Amino acid sequence: MENFIIYNPTKLHFGDEVVENLGKETKSYGKKTLLLYGKGSVVRNGYYQQVVDQLNKSEIEIIEYAGIKSNPLISDVEAAAELGRKHQVDSIVALGGGSVIDSAKIVALCIPEALNAWAVMKYRVKTKEATPILAVLTLAATGTEMNGAAVVQNPETKEKIGHWNPLSYPKHSFLDPSFTATVPEDYTAYGVVDLIAHAFESYFGKGDSPLSDRFVVAVVEDAMEFGPKLLENLTDYDYRANIMLDATCALNGILSYGKAGGDWGVHSIGHTLSVLFDTPHGASLSIAYPAWMKLQKKNNPERLEKLAKQLFGSEDVDLLIQGMEEFFVKMKSPIRLNEIGIGDDKCEEFVELMIKNNVSGYNYQLSKENLREIVDFMK
Amino acid sequence: MENFIIYNPTKLHFGDEVVENLGKETKSYGKKTLLLYGKGSVVRNGYYQQVVDQLNKSEIEIIEYAGIKSNPLISDVEAAAELGRKHQVDSIVALGGGSVIDSAKIVALCIPEALNAWAVMKYRVKTKEATPILAVLTLAATGTEMNGAAVVQNPETKEKIGHWNPLSYPKHSFLDPSFTATVPEDYTAYGVVDLIAHAFESYFGKGDSPLSDRFVVAVVEDAMEFGPKLLENLTDYDYRANIMLDATCALNGILSYGKAGGDWGVHSIGHTLSVLFDTPHGASLSIAYPAWMKLQKKNNPERLEKLAKQLFGSEDVDLLIQGMEEFFVKMKSPIRLNEIGIGDDKCEEFVELMIKNNVSGYNYQLSKENLREIVDFMK
Repeated sequence: MENFIIYNPTKLHFGDEVVENLGKETKSYGKKTLLLYGKGSVVRNGYYQQVVDQLNKSEIEIIEYAGIKSNPLISDVEAAAELGRKHQVDSIVALGGGSVIDSAKIVALCIPEALNAWAVMKYRVKTKEATPILAVLTLAATGTEMNGAAVVQNPETKEKIGHWNPLSYPKHSFLDPSFTATVPEDYTAYGVVDLIAHAFESYFGKGDSPLSDRFVVAVVEDAMEFGPKLLENLTDYDYRANIMLDATCALNGILSYGKAGGDWGVHSIGHTLSVLFDTPHGASLSIAYPAWMKLQKKNNPERLEKLAKQLFGSEDVDLLIQGMEEFFVKMKSPIRLNEIGIGDDKCEEFVELMIKNNVSGYNYQLSKENLREIVDFMK
Repeated sequence: MENFIIYNPTKLHFGDEVVENLGKETKSYGKKTLLLYGKGSVVRNGYYQQVVDQLNKSEIEIIEYAGIKSNPLISDVEAAAELGRKHQVDSIVALGGGSVIDSAKIVALCIPEALNAWAVMKYRVKTKEATPILAVLTLAATGTEMNGAAVVQNPETKEKIGHWNPLSYPKHSFLDPSFTATVPEDYTAYGVVDLIAHAFESYFGKGDSPLSDRFVVAVVEDAMEFGPKLLENLTDYDYRANIMLDATCALNGILSYGKAGGDWGVHSIGHTLSVLFDTPHGASLSIAYPAWMKLQKKNNPERLEKLAKQLFGSEDVDLLIQGMEEFFVKMKSPIRLNEIGIGDDKCEEFVELMIKNNVSGYNYQLSKENLREIVDFMK
């Protein structure tokens, strides 16, 4: 077992109508907040109004920044940070899914000292403080509500990268499963794929921690039980709650106790797909994970055999890969590039960009040849 | 699923030589600390000296209180609090197992406003602040290193009771598995029993949370895999590490996500055994849990059937009870009262004290008749 630290300062409020506590908690940081959200769906679905009502009730002055994209852009982060700085906000209320909350994390790091957002993302400047974040989650997927990670993309450099910062944990996160009830079928499915991929990234991280392995299996089994049920009944509160809790636990640290972090090679591959073809994150992962497993079956089968045994009762890696592919198909998430309109003619561009961006895992290194093989498995 | 909050402010340092960070972290709260420990074993085994060396290195002034008992007494808590108050300590370093750290938690609540310790335990006085606690754990069992709970007994009132307080989380806990390498076979086994019992208390708590059920099974399976291996090789670092992590996770909140707390009926029964006969906590639980399960098999079999299925692959509750009894026997922990010298002649006193102390669970109520039946199952 590796040495490790357990520390997670986020206070997470989970359940029916927990947003009622948002105003009071926001007020504790001061009277002016930057309300960050994405497209109009939170307005149409009434979540925006519920949040504004709670903030009004506590007499919070609201500065708004709307329009964060699904694959969040560094330009929006820059603009939101400038707005927040100009109005000297005391906090950020991030209403949305991973893209909005991730953006809020970088905005929060930029505001106090007027830092450049992409320089923050690339660790080129030192961050000393962050504006407090209160997150209201509307999509169960990334786990950003209870960790210090953020992913943002830069179209100019063709990079979609992650930034981790101990200052980036939301102070409070509010998870009402009802706030995810209007997520359409495809993005509901992508969220389930994403959380399972997070659990796998922990499983394939460096270090040997049998309890963490068991926790990974617990989260994946739960998601594989309730994901398909949820697709059949998108408004069921308990199914939404189970998947929402799975997503939080997949990336709030629990699954990496005793390990030196996750692998993250597959995410890195998926990010390249997204930056090139605007592929939804979850869809990129249901294509990339089976392909990556097929490569590792050949090169490093040991961990795959253990996972196969724990998830499917047999050490046969083919059963694991087949089982996951069948599950992704059941979730209507793509498992091959041609399903999302990416023909063989675009594969060279894909491989080249991965090579240029040094796509690899922390535990399982990926050579140029490996990346080519993985793309072949995606066809 | 029940509404719930995830919040755990303890920073837990886990692994080889983590105590090297103790001095620096203690210093962050001020230069004078109350060092609390139990019997001389920490001195004999060198842990005391390692802790003192680290505190000296950071020029911390140490006030000592030694002699906390295995079943910790309220009188020691009172005396330690008076000592800490007199010397105006800035922090408490608790070196030991559950008894020492639990005592430290009540001491910490008493010091700032000179509160009476038993009144604190019984929630008769309001607590507003607590002296910061830094825990150095020497026994994997109770999970106290990462929660707000403390159990102390009062021989005068013949009560052994728990107190939970959001102020009671240690600020830092240092878990070096090597610090548990000298725990003898019996207390090593009792620790494993205790952590499994904590996981079960969560399982039998109010609310339906499939992921938490799976996390419970993960912890119990891990402990059932590595507990017997550890008994065969008491100084193995990895076995010690696995069990230590199991014990922390059994009671740091993870297993109760989505539930309204645990049941705690069996712990309440066990505490009565300890207060009457000075039975080690773990030993009381390996006797009490099978007996409680035999009662519930008759009255409320549903959850037991699910646990049997998840742990032993069949809904047959008898298999579950038999499996747990066999495991406890393998761990050389008692499963009947006569194994610890309690004859039938003492059972009436036992039942009477449970009735007097209103022993029951939060989820599964226990009538007087139920308590009698449970004791019959213990014979």
